[in-house]
Amino acid sequence: MGSSILIFFNIPGLMIVVGGTIAATMIRYSLRESIYALRMSFKILLPSNDIRNKEELVELTDQLVRSARQNGIVSLEKIEINNEFFQYGVRMLVDNYPSDLVRQTLQEENHLLVERAETSAAVFSAVGASAPAFGMIGTLVGLVQMLANLSDPSSIGPAMAVAMLTTLYGAMIANLFALPMADKVAVWGQEESTRQHMIIEAVDFIAKGLHHSMLQDVLAPYLDKKPQNENAEEV
Amino acid sequence: MGSSILIFFNIPGLMIVVGGTIAATMIRYSLRESIYALRMSFKILLPSNDIRNKEELVELTDQLVRSARQNGIVSLEKIEINNEFFQYGVRMLVDNYPSDLVRQTLQEENHLLVERAETSAAVFSAVGASAPAFGMIGTLVGLVQMLANLSDPSSIGPAMAVAMLTTLYGAMIANLFALPMADKVAVWGQEESTRQHMIIEAVDFIAKGLHHSMLQDVLAPYLDKKPQNENAEEV
Amino acid sequence: MGSSILIFFNIPGLMIVVGGTIAATMIRYSLRESIYALRMSFKILLPSNDIRNKEELVELTDQLVRSARQNGIVSLEKIEINNEFFQYGVRMLVDNYPSDLVRQTLQEENHLLVERAETSAAVFSAVGASAPAFGMIGTLVGLVQMLANLSDPSSIGPAMAVAMLTTLYGAMIANLFALPMADKVAVWGQEESTRQHMIIEAVDFIAKGLHHSMLQDVLAPYLDKKPQNENAEEV
Amino acid sequence: MGSSILIFFNIPGLMIVVGGTIAATMIRYSLRESIYALRMSFKILLPSNDIRNKEELVELTDQLVRSARQNGIVSLEKIEINNEFFQYGVRMLVDNYPSDLVRQTLQEENHLLVERAETSAAVFSAVGASAPAFGMIGTLVGLVQMLANLSDPSSIGPAMAVAMLTTLYGAMIANLFALPMADKVAVWGQEESTRQHMIIEAVDFIAKGLHHSMLQDVLAPYLDKKPQNENAEEV
Amino acid sequence: MGSSILIFFNIPGLMIVVGGTIAATMIRYSLRESIYALRMSFKILLPSNDIRNKEELVELTDQLVRSARQNGIVSLEKIEINNEFFQYGVRMLVDNYPSDLVRQTLQEENHLLVERAETSAAVFSAVGASAPAFGMIGTLVGLVQMLANLSDPSSIGPAMAVAMLTTLYGAMIANLFALPMADKVAVWGQEESTRQHMIIEAVDFIAKGLHHSMLQDVLAPYLDKKPQNENAEEV
Repeated sequence: MGSSILIFFNIPGLMIVVGGTIAATMIRYSLRESIYALRMSFKILLPSNDIRNKEELVELTDQLVRSARQNGIVSLEKIEINNEFFQYGVRMLVDNYPSDLVRQTLQEENHLLVERAETSAAVFSAVGASAPAFGMIGTLVGLVQMLANLSDPSSIGPAMAVAMLTTLYGAMIANLFALPMADKVAVWGQEESTRQHMIIEAVDFIAKGLHHSMLQDVLAPYLDKKPQNENAEEV
Repeated sequence: MGSSILIFFNIPGLMIVVGGTIAATMIRYSLRESIYALRMSFKILLPSNDIRNKEELVELTDQLVRSARQNGIVSLEKIEINNEFFQYGVRMLVDNYPSDLVRQTLQEENHLLVERAETSAAVFSAVGASAPAFGMIGTLVGLVQMLANLSDPSSIGPAMAVAMLTTLYGAMIANLFALPMADKVAVWGQEESTRQHMIIEAVDFIAKGLHHSMLQDVLAPYLDKKPQNENAEEV
Repeated sequence: MGSSILIFFNIPGLMIVVGGTIAATMIRYSLRESIYALRMSFKILLPSNDIRNKEELVELTDQLVRSARQNGIVSLEKIEINNEFFQYGVRMLVDNYPSDLVRQTLQEENHLLVERAETSAAVFSAVGASAPAFGMIGTLVGLVQMLANLSDPSSIGPAMAVAMLTTLYGAMIANLFALPMADKVAVWGQEESTRQHMIIEAVDFIAKGLHHSMLQDVLAPYLDKKPQNENAEEV
Repeated sequence: MGSSILIFFNIPGLMIVVGGTIAATMIRYSLRESIYALRMSFKILLPSNDIRNKEELVELTDQLVRSARQNGIVSLEKIEINNEFFQYGVRMLVDNYPSDLVRQTLQEENHLLVERAETSAAVFSAVGASAPAFGMIGTLVGLVQMLANLSDPSSIGPAMAVAMLTTLYGAMIANLFALPMADKVAVWGQEESTRQHMIIEAVDFIAKGLHHSMLQDVLAPYLDKKPQNENAEEV
Repeated sequence: MGSSILIFFNIPGLMIVVGGTIAATMIRYSLRESIYALRMSFKILLPSNDIRNKEELVELTDQLVRSARQNGIVSLEKIEINNEFFQYGVRMLVDNYPSDLVRQTLQEENHLLVERAETSAAVFSAVGASAPAFGMIGTLVGLVQMLANLSDPSSIGPAMAVAMLTTLYGAMIANLFALPMADKVAVWGQEESTRQHMIIEAVDFIAKGLHHSMLQDVLAPYLDKKPQNENAEEV
């Protein structure tokens, strides 16, 4: 039936669950922190042009190192760098900032990212804890309304269906979005931080004007170790 | 209907939930601790004239430092200081207390605040754990009463509605007030403590009569680092 | 109605909840430990003549120190000491025990108290975890009995009411008594231990026959710091 | 009624709960570990002739020490030692094992006991977590069966009673047996380990052939301190 | 009845629970990590020819050591080694890799295994937490559908039965598979890692060409200590 899916939509119920969850989250965290959390979740879930693969980052660094040694630091301006954090570091080099300041600035950025990822994970955890509670609150509101006006027996079924929807909303918000997202953001924050540490080393390497043959040694600790025994990998 | 909202009010039910929660909290914590917790929650939620922004605190300190060097410590009496803790420290300076004693007294105040914020967060956590339990107790009381006098079938609905209200009250007290407040107080306590540490340094700076040009260096560690890369901030 | 309150009493139900909880607690803890826990809860909840205020303890110590220096240790026998632990220590001094032994004996007493307070808190926590479970078990027993003999529809209501009572009993035992008591005992144990440490110092002070002017310095670390800024206290 | 107690027995339901719990425990722990856990629970709950009282152990050691010094180590063979661990140690002495090896062997035994007690407590914890879950699974199975064949309204009651029995079984297994047992085994393991440490010292004492007057000093640290102040004990 | 077991199968319900659980797990962990977790669970549960017994590993090592000393390392090629990890190490020796590289490569493999076992345990924990939630979501979906179309009273029973099936599926996935598996994988990972450490020592021993009489001393720390007191073992 066409109406089949419509029975799962109930605007007042959705407002109780979403509104209550937002209210409880706003008491815990500032608006700014909540918006960061949302933005971060978009950034993680949406596809991006940013280079996240570490091998590609090594290749890109290699290209930048060669170009810097051959044509000078300024030539880096023309190379496309598909990684915001890397580009920011290289732009500072091109603008002739001292390498110490570049390193320090990037490290402060990195520190900020780690802090924000932790706060965002906490925001999603709080949402995941609040949503089912407000789902239950909505269901109780619906049941009380229904029971207090128990004149028409035939209306009990649909009224109970509507009352139960808020519990469903709360459970879905928590289990399909907030709780997995809390875990994801925490893990992503650590990975992105490692990647930024690697980029900081890469930018430092370019700034020092070292030879590209030494690049592997500097970046090796950040690369995932690949199993060399394909059988043993068959865990 | 005008009666629609009234069905959600039930004085005996509210008394069971609120009374039971208060009783359980009074066994755990003294009356004094509970009142501190309530006062602290008002202080946090209500708007206040107190300067909480750290940049404004730096500005105010700068103003005080200049005034103290030009016109002597006593001149600070005339400057309006919109921060209780800061004002208390400056008043002691004006009253010619030795700077060591001022520092020590402020640190003891700060220590007290941290302790109270922790106790208050624990009080709210205890309320958040008790309220749903007493909501359920109230519902059980209502259901037992209803089921024991099951003569009139038409009264089942309203009686169950009333019984369910206490569960609703308990869930709302816990999820809209107590649990978010517990988290908020804990975070606020840490922030306020950092702010007070900064003020202690500021008061010390004034007491030593140092030149205002050195102020930034002393207070810098307490300021939030601002991202200098606006793109990277777009997390 | 006069019968209104009677519907909340059900002896078999109470026996299931209380009996089951006691049984589960007896497996976990010995009878002696459980009785200590009960005694400790009475001691904490009932009003007592024991001096618990630290300022009064300082005053009492001052009085004892002066008397001991003026009229000798034996004169302490005539002074009323409203604190069991203090009295025990002074009685040993009067009986001419060496001060080292007095100190050691009191410290062993103190150690014992700390251990017992911890065990008692654990006993109450176990009761608080068991009681709701046995409440549910009682309700299930009642429901099974009712459902298996479902001949008379008019008996369903009262039978369900009786079945639900055990859940109510379990929730009340846990939330009004056991869980708050567990927290209370833990906190009380720490406070009483601090008080006993203070008394041990006081008894030592008397034994050494020092001058009462030094008393404040010795006992100061045990006194609560009072806020000297009445405004700042208005948190 | 004679049939009253029979309604609480339902073989298929019991099989779901017990079978499911065993299955889930077998995945977690090996059969050997589970059997150790069961044996340990019997050993703890059943009355035993083993001397567990530390004062009696001191007395027994005193007797053994005197006999060993007067009539030689071999004379110990004739003395009845109601403690398996002690007897094992003494038998090794009688068999003329070097005292170092005796000590080491007993310590390995002790290490094994501690490990097994920990594993057994974990097994009971796992059972305590699984049993209520399989109780609920059994109830759901019963309800689904009942609801799918809802032809005869008069059979609803008994069918629901049967369905609820599994939840009852699960709750009773967890709360009357598994969870208290998990706590008990953990505590018992620590006590037994202390007792074995004391016995190891005692066996070592016998092996060294020291004079029984020194026994108290060696074993004192293992004895429970008794409160010497009977009033203060009245906590 | 033949239809009896069929009432427990409901494809849409299974899809909600399994699909939702997979979706929530995919947000938390990458596809690769989830597949590793599944593979690892198969490897653990299915019978294998791999030698896992430590005593057999010692025997096998002894055989390899003797053969290597008598006929040279290359002779090891002909000996059947029923343990992938061991075989991999020996194959590298036969291929004349330097022993340092062999050791390092095996240690990296071992490090990888430990990491993967931890991640896999976390994946199963996440599944165990999600499955019951999606079971409840499926039941709510079913109840809302049923209640919204409450025209035919005779369809209530079967519809509720279907709705309850998803809760049953969720509880069974969590309690019979995911949660026990999470514990099992964690324990297995530690055991397998110990075994691999032992094999690394064994391969190193072969590489150094030492005499087999020293083998016991090198591998002893990895062998389980066997109780020598059969009575005391009867815990």
